[in-house]
Parts: sequence; structure tokens; C-alpha cells
Amino acid sequence: MKADKYIIPENKKTDIRKLPVNSKEDNVEKEDIIAKYEANKQELIALQDKFYADGREGLIVVIQALDASGKDSAIKYVFSGMNPMGVKVHYYKAPTSEELAHDYLWRIHQNIPRRGEIAVFNRSHYEDLVTVQAEEIWKGYHMSDRVLDDTRKKFFEKRYEQVNNFEEYLYENSYRMVKIFLHVSKEEQTGQLLERIELPEKNWKFRADDLKVRDKYDAYLKCFNDVINKTSTKHSPWYVLPGDQRWYTRYLITEILLHELNDCKPEYPALPDEEAAKLPECRRILSEAMAEYESGKSEKKSDEPKKKSKKKSKK
Amino acid sequence: MKADKYIIPENKKTDIRKLPVNSKEDNVEKEDIIAKYEANKQELIALQDKFYADGREGLIVVIQALDASGKDSAIKYVFSGMNPMGVKVHYYKAPTSEELAHDYLWRIHQNIPRRGEIAVFNRSHYEDLVTVQAEEIWKGYHMSDRVLDDTRKKFFEKRYEQVNNFEEYLYENSYRMVKIFLHVSKEEQTGQLLERIELPEKNWKFRADDLKVRDKYDAYLKCFNDVINKTSTKHSPWYVLPGDQRWYTRYLITEILLHELNDCKPEYPALPDEEAAKLPECRRILSEAMAEYESGKSEKKSDEPKKKSKKKSKK
Repeated sequence: MKADKYIIPENKKTDIRKLPVNSKEDNVEKEDIIAKYEANKQELIALQDKFYADGREGLIVVIQALDASGKDSAIKYVFSGMNPMGVKVHYYKAPTSEELAHDYLWRIHQNIPRRGEIAVFNRSHYEDLVTVQAEEIWKGYHMSDRVLDDTRKKFFEKRYEQVNNFEEYLYENSYRMVKIFLHVSKEEQTGQLLERIELPEKNWKFRADDLKVRDKYDAYLKCFNDVINKTSTKHSPWYVLPGDQRWYTRYLITEILLHELNDCKPEYPALPDEEAAKLPECRRILSEAMAEYESGKSEKKSDEPKKKSKKKSKK
Repeated sequence: MKADKYIIPENKKTDIRKLPVNSKEDNVEKEDIIAKYEANKQELIALQDKFYADGREGLIVVIQALDASGKDSAIKYVFSGMNPMGVKVHYYKAPTSEELAHDYLWRIHQNIPRRGEIAVFNRSHYEDLVTVQAEEIWKGYHMSDRVLDDTRKKFFEKRYEQVNNFEEYLYENSYRMVKIFLHVSKEEQTGQLLERIELPEKNWKFRADDLKVRDKYDAYLKCFNDVINKTSTKHSPWYVLPGDQRWYTRYLITEILLHELNDCKPEYPALPDEEAAKLPECRRILSEAMAEYESGKSEKKSDEPKKKSKKKSKK
């Protein structure tokens, strides 16, 4: 698959800041990519239906990025069209006081889907590794001294291990998790912020405070670099996708999803033999009923308002 | 503390089947123990109040045993009297279809309490290690082949590690977990079953099928022996308590709880300086109001039904 090359290998220092933010080096034509993306989406819709029916594995798709880097729109475009019965999006905002009174994976674990379902995490437990670290939020946690006396390094190294263990546990319990980082240039991020001001229908996403995210670009990207390197594993890999051209990013996401769902080899469940044996008789009953409908006989019968008239007579 | 000796040490093969089921070797007097138990309970009530107010650590108490070995009554006696606002009991029955469609720690993690609270687990994730193993339930799971193709040994070794990781994660996130196994002789178990038949108020707990638990005594105890040895850790130890004399078991549980809560060194939170500075002025306002109540002046005022009469005049 085309997206393979964007996997961050396990146990190998990759500087994600040097990875491409656009499709230049892949030498692709926008028109071709859009056609492939459309075809991929049709394939995904069919595949997700089978994945849901099969129900032996569950899939979690984590989407992370700096602010104003296209998380929402990537989710909107890629997952629209799939059956929402089996696809649920969860948005992790700043934790509530109830969430802060619990361990940080508490709210995440609640949204691990039923097997057969796809859960999309718009932000995720990775906020607890990145934002909580970059903003030094952890120092203000209301926890025992034995936890908070750790150095920053030690505190987050424990978190990396906790997250890796959690994701390994999920894999061993018949789940898949893919983690996608949308790698966007500072220029593109600036353009996106400007667009939120220029387009009235995007105004609601903008606060003057958002200008600060530009100042934090380097610090956050450095932090993501550390976190992604420490948590990209064979069973739950990180993909760092070029994010400046959204048509390309979306296409790559569909490639990842197709790969992952196909790898599960989903099948529509076969009927147990005893149920299968009943099919001919059930077909006969239903076919006869259908024939009656068609000949108009049953229509008359069903139109007789027997029960209603009885009720009335009682009154 | 008296219960120390019942901790199963980490990484050291202990045969729990050879551990005492009664107080004989501890050389205690029933009357003394009951007096100490009553005193412990009073201490626990005060301590839990402080633990709740402090809110920096959470406590999970896992109670496991063979069937008809006094789990329910231990919980009833030890935890009655504590403020239920901060003490919640969770009962894990055979998993529902919704729970089976998820990873086995899903329903457990949901009930991890807020910090400051105590969660009591009547049965727990250890059913997923013991019952699921002893009854070979795991082979019927609806999961990917990559999970179910494991040997029994490998499948459960993974689970031991998953559970140890989960409990270590909780410890590192400002929780404590103590795990208590009520070790009851087959004779006492038989007596308990008989009592469920003899006492009308216990009949509802009995089904003829329950006789089978006696046949399974040895197999289950062997399974618990393996599981307890693999999952007793420094931060989340297993206690295997003698269970034949309930007055003794209950006393030992209060000792464990006192030890654990005291070890958290809970304190009533101190007011922030700026809030503390406001106390004298707030005391003045409230004292004056109180003086007015006492002199009977405010009683008159509050009796005037101003708002009500306004509403009526509008009509």
C-alpha cells in the first residue's frame, strides 16, 4: 500500500520534523489521486459492512495533529458514507473534573468499541502525553506525592510504557489500533487559521487566542516527535502523513483503512448447520405468504378491522 | 499489622492450598478479636471520611473466593457503616453480550473509582483468569484466530501480564489495589451451602446446581493458586485469608483496610491562603445572621410571602 512508507518504525529514531508535508516526492497527479480516493471509499463502505457482520476484531483509528491541521475535515471526508451503526467518532476535549478525578485512560477505555465496530478518536490519550507534557499540566494534578515526585522525564517515560501496554493489551484482545498524525507545515496552519476568519461558516471555530498555536508550533512538534517515536509499535503503528494537501492526506487515510480492514480478513458469518437446514422450510412459508399478498387475498384479510371494531363495541 | 503474614510474596511459589483456613495457629481469643474488630470499624469510618476529603488516591478492594465462601457477608459486615458516598460496591456477574463484545477489562475500568473513593469489587477481572480458564470458556470467544490460536498456557500467561500491567498502571496513577482471597475449607463451604437450604432467608441464594461447586473445589483452588502466585505484586498484593471463622476474616479485612488507608496519609485539604483570609469576614456575616434568627427578627421577614402574593395578583 501507498501509505506504508509513512509508518514510523519501532525502536528507531525518526525525526518526524524532516518528513514531507506534501506529495511532492511521491510524484502523483491530483486527478489520479482523487479518482483512487473515490474508488477506495466505495471499497471501504463494502468492507466495513463485512467487518461489522464478522465482529471478531475491533478497530480504533486515532487522529492527532497540531491545532488547525485538518483533523475534523479528514474525519468528515473519510468516514462519511460508512454506516454510522458501526462507526463512532469520539472527541476528546480538555478533561472534565470527573475525568480528572480518574486515571487518564478511564475515558478512553470507555469508548473502546464493540468488536466489529470502528471507533475514530478525534484527539485521544495522546493528549495526555503531548499537551499535558508541553504545558506542564501534570504538575498541577491532584495525586499522591509518590506519583508527582517523579521527574518530568520519568513521569512521561512511565506514561509511554503505560500506553504501549494498553495498546498491546487491546491487540491481544482482538483489536487493532492505527494512529495517524497529520503533519502540516506552519505555513499551511497559518492559512487554515486565516480561513477560519475569512469564511463566515468557519468563524465559530476561531478564537483570538488561537494565534498562540503558531508560537507553539515548534515546541509541540518536538513533543509529538518524542511521543510518536516512543509509541509506534508493530501492532499499533504511527503514520505521519503529509498534511498540506488535504486531497492527498485523505487518500492516504483510505489506503491505511483498507489495508487494516483487509488484514482482518472479515467474512460474513456462516449460518450454523442446524439453522442452515431450516432455510428451505422458512423460504417455503415466506414464499407462500408472499404469493398470497401478490394475489391480493391477504390484503382483504388484513384490511378487516376486527380488533378495532371490538374495542369500539366495548365502549 | 496482623494481616501482613497473609500476603502472598511476589515471585515466590506459595502453595495457597497449604495456608490456614482458620485462626488456630494465630492463637487468638474470639472475644478479643471481636472487640478489636469493632474498634477498627470506628477507626475506618473516621479514616474513610478523611480519605474522601483528601482525594489524592483511590482504593480498589477486590474480594474473590470460591462459591459459598462468604464474599457477600464479608462485604456487608466490613463496609456497612462507612459513608456510601465514598464507598461503592460493584458485582461482576457472568458477562452480558455487550460486555463479551468488548475486551474483558472494559467493564472493570469503568468502575475504577474517582480518587478519594473506595471501590469494592465483589468478584472482578480475576474471574477472567480463573473461571474462564477452569471452564475453558475462552475457547468459545468470538475473536480473531491470531488470539485464539494460542495454547491455553500462552493465552493465560498473556492475561497475567495484562492484569499486572493494568494494576501497575493504576498504582502509577495514584490508586491502590488490594486483593483478598477468602480461603475456606471444603467442609465450611458445604456447611454454607446447607445453611442456604436450612434458613428461609437464604433460600433465594440457592439453586440445586450449586452442589456442583463442591466437585469443583480442588480444580478451582488449584487455578486460584496459579493465578494468585502470578499476580501478587508489591503494589497490588494478594492476601489469602483464613475464611472458616467469619469473625476472624472480617477482623483481618479491617486490619488490611486500616493499613492501606493509613499508608496513604490522608489529610483534610487545607484552604488556599486567599480563601482562608476570607474566613473572618464570612464568619462575621453568618454570625450576625444567626444572631438575627435567634432574636426572632429574621423569622418575621422570611415569613412574608412576597413573591407568592405577586403571582396571585397577576392571575
